[in-house]
Amino acid sequence: MVQFDDINRAYERVRGHIHRTPVLTSRTLNRWVGGELYFKCENFQRGGAFKFRGALNAVLMLSDAEAARGVVTHSSGNHGGALALAARERGIPAHVVLPRDAVGMKRQAVLEYGGFVVPCDPDLGARQATAAQVTEQTGAILVHPYDDARVIAGQGTVGLEVIEQVQGLDMLIAPVGGGGLLSGIAVAVASRAPRVALMGAEPAEADDARRSLLSGERLPSENPRTIADGLRAGLGTLTFPILQRYVGEIITAREDTIVESMRMLWERMKIVVEPSAAVALAALKERPDLARGRRIGVVLTGGNVDLARLPWQHGVEASTGS
Amino acid sequence: MVQFDDINRAYERVRGHIHRTPVLTSRTLNRWVGGELYFKCENFQRGGAFKFRGALNAVLMLSDAEAARGVVTHSSGNHGGALALAARERGIPAHVVLPRDAVGMKRQAVLEYGGFVVPCDPDLGARQATAAQVTEQTGAILVHPYDDARVIAGQGTVGLEVIEQVQGLDMLIAPVGGGGLLSGIAVAVASRAPRVALMGAEPAEADDARRSLLSGERLPSENPRTIADGLRAGLGTLTFPILQRYVGEIITAREDTIVESMRMLWERMKIVVEPSAAVALAALKERPDLARGRRIGVVLTGGNVDLARLPWQHGVEASTGS
Repeated sequence: MVQFDDINRAYERVRGHIHRTPVLTSRTLNRWVGGELYFKCENFQRGGAFKFRGALNAVLMLSDAEAARGVVTHSSGNHGGALALAARERGIPAHVVLPRDAVGMKRQAVLEYGGFVVPCDPDLGARQATAAQVTEQTGAILVHPYDDARVIAGQGTVGLEVIEQVQGLDMLIAPVGGGGLLSGIAVAVASRAPRVALMGAEPAEADDARRSLLSGERLPSENPRTIADGLRAGLGTLTFPILQRYVGEIITAREDTIVESMRMLWERMKIVVEPSAAVALAALKERPDLARGRRIGVVLTGGNVDLARLPWQHGVEASTGS
Repeated sequence: MVQFDDINRAYERVRGHIHRTPVLTSRTLNRWVGGELYFKCENFQRGGAFKFRGALNAVLMLSDAEAARGVVTHSSGNHGGALALAARERGIPAHVVLPRDAVGMKRQAVLEYGGFVVPCDPDLGARQATAAQVTEQTGAILVHPYDDARVIAGQGTVGLEVIEQVQGLDMLIAPVGGGGLLSGIAVAVASRAPRVALMGAEPAEADDARRSLLSGERLPSENPRTIADGLRAGLGTLTFPILQRYVGEIITAREDTIVESMRMLWERMKIVVEPSAAVALAALKERPDLARGRRIGVVLTGGNVDLARLPWQHGVEASTGS
């Protein structure tokens, strides 16, 4: 299991490369939810999402011999671009396996950071097989988007920063997809600020983590139909036991609340966040009993979104399927 | 003429009410322009724009007897909402004269902050006449959007903050409409950090301030056709002589560069800015000779924009007329 010391060492490795992202507040959003909210803005992170922390920690932990072989991943989301950026930072190649139907933006990010895009069929089996092929051909090291101790430790540095930046938090909430971010944060916070309650947030339409914690066994994410495309994955073998140990509850948000929360963040806080990043705020909005009167850290995970296609615009709602 | 001490006292008045907005940086935008840019994010200010500083200073300077009569302004832009918010902060009424065809958002902001909207015909004469009527009927005090020493002193607090937040600036650039912001900043910076070069930025399609400084006489803004709706006004009688004294140069940006710069700020910095706020970045982009190798403070003035109607979306370009 990932230990606090892993996160501390990850922070030593990555801190010269990452942004220490600011924490922003808004009276309007405090009133809207009924709590005192501290937004940790990882949408301002390099690469546009917290994913750069974990990817970079993994890349920097490679030996020189390993690094020379490059890295590979399969991800239709922010991890692909983040790994390409991390690899560029070390001057090594990155191969990112992307389904042929992946959003243009995600492909563009990989290419912009100098990564190689490897197309594959859109199912998970094809992605894994293609990644395995790349490894066989190039010797590249696989860096999984979340089920990797190096990645979890890197994401945990978000937790280190936020508890330094905001004193006296009652609660810290982050969205859960594969669980890399929340499990990393959980290890950091449980050690450094054990009185802070840890919560996860999920779309109600992709609530496998909530159901997994309740049932005590890791359930797959089946046919998730949510606009929060970063949260469609199921928990990993490494992340699940960490969440079981440290996370109090996982709360959920409806699709309409997610879009409304995303719009509130854009309109009232003037920041660009992607749908997945709005899920923690949305889940709090649906649980005023949890938020009321509390000081709550809320992780805004990323801001990579197609600006020509926003969910509150006519005709875009139809694209919420997986 | 507004003095440094006026700005200092304005800051004492407003600082408990305003956000000390953060300064953000972006490696991508530094590369894009070729300088070291420090963005002062007044889009994060209360009310969504720097205008709250000046409006609040004006409202807080009223005697109790004056304040009881309320305030009035005519503004189709951010000043209307800002004045309503400032008046609410002091618990007094605000009347905002708005042309019948004003953008729905601007009307909504005034109403949301508890102000009264007074409709009028869309020409400047009708606006002034209607405001005069309101004053006659209610005794409300006129707070002009920029040609008012109290307002200029309030806007100058942006300058105080930015020179505290960023050491060793070579240059500071802000957009110019009526000139309230730039003249306030100029007085602050000339006194506190006289080595910082002061620049203004305007749309090429509304370059009356540039022409006024070059000709030595205050020229009107005639038929401005720019998407930067906050910068269509001409200079005021108070702001013009301050700019003449302190501002080195006013540089301009084409409409396409303004939209491109706005999109870069959204896409790469993940912040919501309105077209007017992107004009300083756009003007620097068109003058790489000025930007290269320099540390430049760039004021992002506001973020109030209709999220359902963005300028890079099909069919929206047609709305750039005044």
